[in-house]
Amino acid sequence: MKTTFTLENADGLARAGTVTTARGTFTTPCFMPVGTRGAIKHLSSADMEDLGAQVILANNYHLMLRPGADVVAALGGLHSFADWHGHTLTDSGGYQVFSLEPKIDDDGATFKSVYDGSKLHMTPESAVDSQVQIGADIQMVLDVCSALPSPDHVIREALDRTIDWAVRARQHFLDQPDALARQAQFGIVQGGLDLSMRAESAQRTVEVGFDGYAVGGLSVGEHRSEWHEPLLAATNELPADQPRYFMGLGDPAGIVDAVARGIDMFDCVLPTRLARHGTLLTSQGRLNLSRAEFERSDEPIDPAYPDSPVARWSRGYLRHLLRVKEPTAARLLTIHNLWWLLRFVDDMRTAILEDRFESFAASVHEVWS
Amino acid sequence: MKTTFTLENADGLARAGTVTTARGTFTTPCFMPVGTRGAIKHLSSADMEDLGAQVILANNYHLMLRPGADVVAALGGLHSFADWHGHTLTDSGGYQVFSLEPKIDDDGATFKSVYDGSKLHMTPESAVDSQVQIGADIQMVLDVCSALPSPDHVIREALDRTIDWAVRARQHFLDQPDALARQAQFGIVQGGLDLSMRAESAQRTVEVGFDGYAVGGLSVGEHRSEWHEPLLAATNELPADQPRYFMGLGDPAGIVDAVARGIDMFDCVLPTRLARHGTLLTSQGRLNLSRAEFERSDEPIDPAYPDSPVARWSRGYLRHLLRVKEPTAARLLTIHNLWWLLRFVDDMRTAILEDRFESFAASVHEVWS
Repeated sequence: MKTTFTLENADGLARAGTVTTARGTFTTPCFMPVGTRGAIKHLSSADMEDLGAQVILANNYHLMLRPGADVVAALGGLHSFADWHGHTLTDSGGYQVFSLEPKIDDDGATFKSVYDGSKLHMTPESAVDSQVQIGADIQMVLDVCSALPSPDHVIREALDRTIDWAVRARQHFLDQPDALARQAQFGIVQGGLDLSMRAESAQRTVEVGFDGYAVGGLSVGEHRSEWHEPLLAATNELPADQPRYFMGLGDPAGIVDAVARGIDMFDCVLPTRLARHGTLLTSQGRLNLSRAEFERSDEPIDPAYPDSPVARWSRGYLRHLLRVKEPTAARLLTIHNLWWLLRFVDDMRTAILEDRFESFAASVHEVWS
Repeated sequence: MKTTFTLENADGLARAGTVTTARGTFTTPCFMPVGTRGAIKHLSSADMEDLGAQVILANNYHLMLRPGADVVAALGGLHSFADWHGHTLTDSGGYQVFSLEPKIDDDGATFKSVYDGSKLHMTPESAVDSQVQIGADIQMVLDVCSALPSPDHVIREALDRTIDWAVRARQHFLDQPDALARQAQFGIVQGGLDLSMRAESAQRTVEVGFDGYAVGGLSVGEHRSEWHEPLLAATNELPADQPRYFMGLGDPAGIVDAVARGIDMFDCVLPTRLARHGTLLTSQGRLNLSRAEFERSDEPIDPAYPDSPVARWSRGYLRHLLRVKEPTAARLLTIHNLWWLLRFVDDMRTAILEDRFESFAASVHEVWS
């Protein structure tokens, strides 16, 4: 089953659309909460239903180690495992593997398990296979992500190897008709901050031919303005009728900047991680709930949004729970940040549909830049 | 406003009834989940509404230190603070204070704060005052709880001092008309395992005159059979038209044994603490979800209760989350245990109303003794 992107409206390069997969449809722009080990921290699939999330991320690397891709398969695959009936996407775990300083060769990556120190080897083919077992709606190829800044020859080597691995991963995926009928597979564009390498990586990834395209290796520490041009160099080469995904981006200003350059899908641990440390997304920007001024505040986190599922509790109460490390705090603040960001992306979608994306983006930059 | 207990049916000494307070009513037997710092760990008041809890406990000692009783008062009192509209009860915190090896004299207890090591002094009067500020529907007197076993003279000294403090606490409470209009105050019976001291403590506490009576200092390590007679010696002396509360008891067999001796109210951290460590209450007894046999189990925690709010997730999934320490596990398992125990107490209430408490108790002992 071919995954398609249907454009509902374009406002400049910003797109409002619908992605259709074997499971059904989801609308874009779309923010995908991250449930690395099969759950968003402190939340369940019931909470994600309440929040109206459309797509949830999980991580192949973590799930193949614990509980094991075969265990997820034995329990019916990721949707049945987590009892989640929306869309799912698994990252290959390349990013996690590369943070472990693996030994890389043409065949794949060799690294130690974070769980028990055992030596593991991941190849483009094995990453396809474990993601087939896990059974998300969308699986990602294993790519090579280099740190920024890196010398040109390192970026070049990562680009070439990512393409080699993409060819192998695609072939291996196409050889599995059962998986093909259920899953989509996305390629990943690399190329650092070099415009010609970004364009080349995008062209060559499109030549391999995937169901959608991700841009990886951006927003890994460099300032937002530095990835604008490299991102555009990539998205200019991507087909209009397939979805585009910026990996690992979750701040409001970054999201509007990427949407302005043709991106449809986002994921990031930022909103959930910030929440656990007491930093909230609000219409006035970030709010650090730990501050003493909120001790006796009976206002909700974001007075502009009285319909937030967390608006019934005061800043004073939530600050207290945070301060005494009650896990209820992490839960409620996580719900707030995800609710806020999902609503933000919905508002952005409405702005694109109503041809007023530019003024929406300007108002976001006023608060978040 | 006088707190009353209305008997709906007695089956032997087991009572099914309704407690009426200034806030409204709750039915008994009743299990009260423990939200020490103003929240049950991992849960919010929205969850407690979903679970149908009637009364939630909080702890005066913890709340007076963090965020401070004055902060809770500034935020409208405990109900407004936690946005919980059911009943609340605060323990004085005597039990927590005595675990800190305080210096005790006739005036009160001197101890160090667990938060910053500062020296604190709590008296029967100050415990009333901070509980007035916190504003629960029911407040408890400061008592002296001795460990079991203790020499008779230690039990005797604790009993006498508890009565002295009860007289002072009651007088101090009666001097505050605003609090009187809103709150009830319960006395606490001590006396160790000695039958005559238990009876004497109960008689003298009733002479002081409270809105309800708790039995403290039992089930603190001794076998269940050891507290049966001392408990009965106490409840025999308690008035029939006021509620009776066994402090710190939460296992099913213990609860039926205490109800069989005339107790109406219970609290315990057991169901929530067990849940966080992966031990579940089920119709077959305790279930340790960590066990390898559950790795691929697609059954719910307790197949006998498909209507549990956690029944949609499999043992295999929940075991995985528990094993990788995802906080979602602690949350869902806590919900299961509280749901299960609240349902258990409701079933017991129905059995009393239908004059079949004895067979209910026998079936509980078959699984839990």
